[in-house]
Amino acid sequence: MDKVLGIDIGGTSIKAGMFSTEGTLEAATQIPTGEIVSEAAFAVVTEGLKKLLADNGASADDVVGVGLDVPGPVDDDGKVGMLANIELDPEGLQAALKRTFSRANLAFVNDANAAALGELWQGTAKDAKSFVLVAIGTGVGGGVVTDGKIVSGAFGAGGEIGHITVNRNEKDSCGCGRQGCLEQYASASGIVRVYKQECEKLGQDPVALSGPTDTLSVFNACRDGDKAAQAAISCMCDCLGYAMAQISAIIDPQMYLLGGGVAGGFNLFAEELRAAFRKYCLAPSIGTRILPASLGNDAAMYGSAYQAMKG
Amino acid sequence: MDKVLGIDIGGTSIKAGMFSTEGTLEAATQIPTGEIVSEAAFAVVTEGLKKLLADNGASADDVVGVGLDVPGPVDDDGKVGMLANIELDPEGLQAALKRTFSRANLAFVNDANAAALGELWQGTAKDAKSFVLVAIGTGVGGGVVTDGKIVSGAFGAGGEIGHITVNRNEKDSCGCGRQGCLEQYASASGIVRVYKQECEKLGQDPVALSGPTDTLSVFNACRDGDKAAQAAISCMCDCLGYAMAQISAIIDPQMYLLGGGVAGGFNLFAEELRAAFRKYCLAPSIGTRILPASLGNDAAMYGSAYQAMKG
Repeated sequence: MDKVLGIDIGGTSIKAGMFSTEGTLEAATQIPTGEIVSEAAFAVVTEGLKKLLADNGASADDVVGVGLDVPGPVDDDGKVGMLANIELDPEGLQAALKRTFSRANLAFVNDANAAALGELWQGTAKDAKSFVLVAIGTGVGGGVVTDGKIVSGAFGAGGEIGHITVNRNEKDSCGCGRQGCLEQYASASGIVRVYKQECEKLGQDPVALSGPTDTLSVFNACRDGDKAAQAAISCMCDCLGYAMAQISAIIDPQMYLLGGGVAGGFNLFAEELRAAFRKYCLAPSIGTRILPASLGNDAAMYGSAYQAMKG
Repeated sequence: MDKVLGIDIGGTSIKAGMFSTEGTLEAATQIPTGEIVSEAAFAVVTEGLKKLLADNGASADDVVGVGLDVPGPVDDDGKVGMLANIELDPEGLQAALKRTFSRANLAFVNDANAAALGELWQGTAKDAKSFVLVAIGTGVGGGVVTDGKIVSGAFGAGGEIGHITVNRNEKDSCGCGRQGCLEQYASASGIVRVYKQECEKLGQDPVALSGPTDTLSVFNACRDGDKAAQAAISCMCDCLGYAMAQISAIIDPQMYLLGGGVAGGFNLFAEELRAAFRKYCLAPSIGTRILPASLGNDAAMYGSAYQAMKG
């Protein structure tokens, strides 16, 4: 039986899923890796994948596709750009996988793009022609799908929606070196940043935070009536709704999906976000749906498998 | 020999071109129409097209595609939305064309999208995978191409780049009812509007203008050292470069093409526009090319033919 592997590459381990070509996740495993830059490290990956297959009644010869998502740019031709946060030699790993899975098509995908493809294959966006996944974690990532295909971009910057400018008056700099990016207000760190600013404005102490991305505590404070937390979440909704309205004036997608850790609070802010989008968008786009993504942390694994199968 | 017709629908006449399937414009004609809402008016169109074919050694049976561009929204499924500026019954015209050209595939395209498709088929963007046409006329239109296909949008608002917000502090309203749209600064009327504001600021009289969209006089004044004209053109470049940087953070196209009447002044402002884009864009997109479109007023005729042929 033909199988497809979807591999989510992290800093210290990979998560691998074995899928049927119809999109059923039949088994998954986590393989500790460390840096993936040597033949020894490539062998850890390939042996781990072979074990996953063997444990589930399949073998390397069944594999028709191997998709890998990476936390960095991948251009329209599938070429991996500079990876800032992980040690990975993409060409070396690709060669090792090709030797092990000789029938398989190999594909690299940017992680947010992979998550979007996962939602397109088996998630909320199943059968959608166009949509944008907004992935809110430490930063804000995105996956743009038009005509059923991911838009990686000519230079790998497709879906960098965290860097849409939403405030030209901002003085603080974003990680990208520019000012006023969506990510500065709507990411986990952005929400906490704005919350602290609002506390200062109101002369109140912030609630106890476990760290600079602890939006859970900010969301809980909001539910408890904390004015600064409410202001931070309103700011997030306003910035996000504004950015989505800009996207709609360019590609006018069928729907937006919210994913990433912060999407756990979707019910808390969904109505305010929808209202902000409607306030800023052009009239024809006013009915665009804004929905939560449904595959959670597995989305990128699904999407990289899908990309390898399609390619 | 198979032929394709491309039809550019205007308020008082249509312009029709007869193309080979390879994209050579073999003949063209202008047919005065008036309102296109009755069987009599549809017959004027079909008879005019049959004459164009007959005069050039072809007949209705040779026609494999008829594409029509309209100045209004057309969604991803080819459905024509509300047309504000012309009197046209799209279903009626479509039925009449279908009776006349029984072999032909029929397609409607938004006019700016058609111009983009024309540039993709036979213009500057030939063989490009992705690009955005910025059409600067009385307003600012756009055509977005990803993976070689036009992005019409789920609600027909794809490519409405004239309504990207570039100034959240603007008090004057755009035609769309929102404030701070690109069109308020970078369209022909926007350039003249800003020029007059700059003249007032500087306490100078504007040069003689033939009307509210006379950018030619503003461009000439700029060449002659008029400070207000220079400021208006700098403002246009800044707003356009900023908007293009937002587009690149979403779909990251290979190139931008400038079309429409204002693109006649391309050489005057090209370097300033490129500098503005580089100032605002994300690092990976910095090499994106910004070029003039090449098919001029015929672009939409080419593009509607192309859409009908592909469809």
